[in-house]
Amino acid sequence: MNTFGRLFSCTTFGESHGPALGVVVDGCPPGIPLTEDLIQPYMERRRPGRDSTMSPRAEPDHVEILSGVFEGRTTGMPIAILIPSVAQRSGDYDSLRSVFRPGHADYTYHLKYGHRDHRGGGRSSGRETAARVAAGAVAFQCLFNQGISIRSRILEIHGNSNPDQFEEEILVAKERGDSVGGIIELFAEGCPTGLGDPVFGKLDAAIAGAMMGIGSIKGVEIGEGFAAARMSGSEHNDPMQKSGFATNHAGGILGGISNGDPIVIRCAVKPTPSISLPQQTINSEGEEVEISIRGRHDPCIVPRVLVVAECMLALVLIDAVLMQKRFTGF
Amino acid sequence: MNTFGRLFSCTTFGESHGPALGVVVDGCPPGIPLTEDLIQPYMERRRPGRDSTMSPRAEPDHVEILSGVFEGRTTGMPIAILIPSVAQRSGDYDSLRSVFRPGHADYTYHLKYGHRDHRGGGRSSGRETAARVAAGAVAFQCLFNQGISIRSRILEIHGNSNPDQFEEEILVAKERGDSVGGIIELFAEGCPTGLGDPVFGKLDAAIAGAMMGIGSIKGVEIGEGFAAARMSGSEHNDPMQKSGFATNHAGGILGGISNGDPIVIRCAVKPTPSISLPQQTINSEGEEVEISIRGRHDPCIVPRVLVVAECMLALVLIDAVLMQKRFTGF
Amino acid sequence: MNTFGRLFSCTTFGESHGPALGVVVDGCPPGIPLTEDLIQPYMERRRPGRDSTMSPRAEPDHVEILSGVFEGRTTGMPIAILIPSVAQRSGDYDSLRSVFRPGHADYTYHLKYGHRDHRGGGRSSGRETAARVAAGAVAFQCLFNQGISIRSRILEIHGNSNPDQFEEEILVAKERGDSVGGIIELFAEGCPTGLGDPVFGKLDAAIAGAMMGIGSIKGVEIGEGFAAARMSGSEHNDPMQKSGFATNHAGGILGGISNGDPIVIRCAVKPTPSISLPQQTINSEGEEVEISIRGRHDPCIVPRVLVVAECMLALVLIDAVLMQKRFTGF
Amino acid sequence: MNTFGRLFSCTTFGESHGPALGVVVDGCPPGIPLTEDLIQPYMERRRPGRDSTMSPRAEPDHVEILSGVFEGRTTGMPIAILIPSVAQRSGDYDSLRSVFRPGHADYTYHLKYGHRDHRGGGRSSGRETAARVAAGAVAFQCLFNQGISIRSRILEIHGNSNPDQFEEEILVAKERGDSVGGIIELFAEGCPTGLGDPVFGKLDAAIAGAMMGIGSIKGVEIGEGFAAARMSGSEHNDPMQKSGFATNHAGGILGGISNGDPIVIRCAVKPTPSISLPQQTINSEGEEVEISIRGRHDPCIVPRVLVVAECMLALVLIDAVLMQKRFTGF
Repeated sequence: MNTFGRLFSCTTFGESHGPALGVVVDGCPPGIPLTEDLIQPYMERRRPGRDSTMSPRAEPDHVEILSGVFEGRTTGMPIAILIPSVAQRSGDYDSLRSVFRPGHADYTYHLKYGHRDHRGGGRSSGRETAARVAAGAVAFQCLFNQGISIRSRILEIHGNSNPDQFEEEILVAKERGDSVGGIIELFAEGCPTGLGDPVFGKLDAAIAGAMMGIGSIKGVEIGEGFAAARMSGSEHNDPMQKSGFATNHAGGILGGISNGDPIVIRCAVKPTPSISLPQQTINSEGEEVEISIRGRHDPCIVPRVLVVAECMLALVLIDAVLMQKRFTGF
Repeated sequence: MNTFGRLFSCTTFGESHGPALGVVVDGCPPGIPLTEDLIQPYMERRRPGRDSTMSPRAEPDHVEILSGVFEGRTTGMPIAILIPSVAQRSGDYDSLRSVFRPGHADYTYHLKYGHRDHRGGGRSSGRETAARVAAGAVAFQCLFNQGISIRSRILEIHGNSNPDQFEEEILVAKERGDSVGGIIELFAEGCPTGLGDPVFGKLDAAIAGAMMGIGSIKGVEIGEGFAAARMSGSEHNDPMQKSGFATNHAGGILGGISNGDPIVIRCAVKPTPSISLPQQTINSEGEEVEISIRGRHDPCIVPRVLVVAECMLALVLIDAVLMQKRFTGF
Repeated sequence: MNTFGRLFSCTTFGESHGPALGVVVDGCPPGIPLTEDLIQPYMERRRPGRDSTMSPRAEPDHVEILSGVFEGRTTGMPIAILIPSVAQRSGDYDSLRSVFRPGHADYTYHLKYGHRDHRGGGRSSGRETAARVAAGAVAFQCLFNQGISIRSRILEIHGNSNPDQFEEEILVAKERGDSVGGIIELFAEGCPTGLGDPVFGKLDAAIAGAMMGIGSIKGVEIGEGFAAARMSGSEHNDPMQKSGFATNHAGGILGGISNGDPIVIRCAVKPTPSISLPQQTINSEGEEVEISIRGRHDPCIVPRVLVVAECMLALVLIDAVLMQKRFTGF
Repeated sequence: MNTFGRLFSCTTFGESHGPALGVVVDGCPPGIPLTEDLIQPYMERRRPGRDSTMSPRAEPDHVEILSGVFEGRTTGMPIAILIPSVAQRSGDYDSLRSVFRPGHADYTYHLKYGHRDHRGGGRSSGRETAARVAAGAVAFQCLFNQGISIRSRILEIHGNSNPDQFEEEILVAKERGDSVGGIIELFAEGCPTGLGDPVFGKLDAAIAGAMMGIGSIKGVEIGEGFAAARMSGSEHNDPMQKSGFATNHAGGILGGISNGDPIVIRCAVKPTPSISLPQQTINSEGEEVEISIRGRHDPCIVPRVLVVAECMLALVLIDAVLMQKRFTGF
């Protein structure tokens, strides 16, 4: 449940306000260059407090490699990466111990587990994604080795697709104690043909599951996605030429298997549920209460989700690469 | 790769023009009523040739239960269900042995496997979903036992959201040798709170992977989905009252765990890639050729996808139900 | 639960007296020669009724390949193999519907599942191994491709290690309505170094689990096995020379990974539990009853277990071979 | 590969001379009492240096719980346990960087991974079992909750079954720079009927795999084990009475499913491969060399293996308990 991947797997652990977050990456090929310095830039891209649109929380998220690396290169053994937490103001959350924040997992965790670490959302906090980014950074090193790269961009913030107005959209929402969402787009380039497997092992199925497993993501599409539903077959099918596909409506995947074209994915990111505007909710006694969530929250998580989504995609792709090699030499 | 599910799993097999398709369902609880007659209505909903918008192919798809059922009830042992194929005109496909049909998996399968059964798309054919429906029918029997039901509907055909015009949209496309796609919506009702697990075991992640694993589906969204990206937090968060959630923007899932409200999913279905209009492609020699796909194809797969999507959702939910019970009595 | 293997997996189904047994083999590399004729000789080695030491039951066990093979070679798609049952005398078992046979799984299945197919032991019957042998035959074709071979022999029957007296030991037991067990030994030759993974993925751990998963096997040892417990380190360690290991006390596996030497395994096979001598037991009402099991049972299963154990070993090895290839080209 | 278990899983990491070992336990039910103090006694039973028969190495093995526990009880979230290493004399191992120690995994790891942490055996060191014991301690807390207990004992050291002479056998071997092995026996009591699944999910298969996955174990048997091979069916079958089974030759498992009687397991432990007597081997250049392994090694690992084997058994049983609950309420 906390493990992702079949051959290249990562198991994350840690709660928002616990002593540390971390991840164990298993199945990494040996001989790949890896140091804390190679991981840290990915952590930095996810870090809050980098500009005025983000929570001012201080989360340095320095990583420590505990195993699986010897003299700067991976050994094929499990790679444990620790992200110690800095002292946190748990006190901020005492008032929320028994109140269910709307849009958060407080209610469902309470009913499912009974006993939970409520501080900052505990395990359901977005802070958990720090561990995914550390794992993704390892995956990226392996993908580079195979000539595969990933990039991403913001397409929309709060329905506005003008990049010059993204910051303003976020600051306006922040100003009134509210939050906004947006749409992101990812590209994987350099993928060989043949990644993915038929039926339930489709590459797009794995990607969709990986993306929707990011807490704030509520929609995923590949290639034309929802627009494909409004096209005719003669428009949507990608003609083939000697030089390759003439178009890429399919988004780089045919029948669940990569076709050599760039893989194109878009995800819908919901507005952050933590807002300071008053909201109606109930507490663990079932009583109706009003809450206004104070604290240093992100009015828009979209800019910080980019690297998380890239890392999940990297984890899907390196797993598919390792799977693809299993028939070598038959 | 051909197995879906952790505790309630199904393994499908079979190619479009082989002697039979089938599925082995493993992990079904014992004592559930099951006969061929209880499965057949689901097969019927998927069957082509039922009206003028569908392929006129004759695929009776009669199921035979080979194991796991004794005296009309399941025994907890693996349930093998066979769907023998009727004689098929494989000859129709001889001309396509070495030509890659645009929008199909011919090209990627050829590159990945080298040796493939090209007839009717072989394993990548939509016919494979017959086996999923048989498995889903077993899942449905188990869900009924737990008070969970699933239904679905068509929201759009070719961008048109007027149900009275769905048939016309399809027939117009068929008339000109083209195809169209659409959008479907699914609802799961009666789900208890607590289905799904944190982080990588999120119920919405499993649903997204399951839906995107259906060949024709290119986009998936939960609750407000892509619309959530355009909402503010104060609009999107579902307020809680003593009587439950005031709204269901979340689509029945919070933090990856069902919250007791109906689960709401929408999927984008691409236009069928088999069209009789001429298309540009290449053959296995790399030569450019033009093809026009003859045969009895569906001009729109949307009506037939409904039951397949319902069955995939049923498989996800029964698996989550079994997972949820693992902590019973601690 | 009815699936074995990670990358090369098989899922078996079927009960002793049901319409058919079968298996779905998933993950087989494409291009491997496979026909019914290549599988049948393995079925023949497992078949009862071949000499006076075996049950005279007629189980022709003809296999039918339903999928995954095209024009005599595998396609990489799941290979379904059906083994239709011939008409059986279910009536023989009516008297055993509610009586628990000592040494059989009747009692534990009854308590675990409530509703069970009691005829001939249902799913717990040794007949289930026919499906494993069919899967193993596919694995063998893949191993041949990689230069790996497996053979086995009987070391002991009823404590007697003289091969000339094996048949007599069995016939004496049969004569008095009793049964006997024995010890078998397996060898895998031609394995490359590097099969298996550290810690929980050890090759010997996988072998031990596979062997102990055969119903009649109660003990497994690798290399010197239990004799190693009585040796000193200076005797047990295998010295290394330029030409290789001087001895093979380790049985071809060091640290869970194959070392290039033959892999050597021994298994203890218990006496068949079905005997005609009177036995004390209880029925499903909890009443004490005496039973004498009539029917055509094997007085010793050891000769028929050989091919089953070889096939399980083949399944473990081909899975390890595919796993080993995942790091190719890094 | 470094993860064990399906529903209650543990993923271990760490090398002998790295900064820390550790484990992530996933799938633990919520509400189970857990603190470092409840884990530490298990670590203590595994610790070297406790008497003259053991290595005098100082490995305090203090555990730190990093996640998954809140206010002294588990939350259902992954439990990360860290075991920081104390400063080690890595220098001792410099001379062994390119020499393959007989009976160790140096050779196979070198060939499989190329780049390895040679210090103290790296990942293949018995030190890795410290992480398993920490995980097992968590499993034990869950088993207590269900009324299940485990105990173990030494049956033989170097072929001698007189407990009064075990210490002497070890000290004699130590004196001459050699090592010895032995046989251990485990009992699980209080197991409900119904643990384990048919065919490939048999409880005894899982136990055999778990035990053989301990580095020093070369043989496993259940109930009568190898002795069963020398018995007749009339001797080996356990008669049933109103009050239960009259004997327990089966070792508590019938058809792969627990029958309510104590589960009885015996394992063969090989002599420790690290001995100071001179041995013939080769180095990574393929040259023949003689080595004599200096350092503080255990002349017999049997006393320290007991708790490791108990912990692996605990992990198998709690996983089977959780699996068994999946059908609750159908």
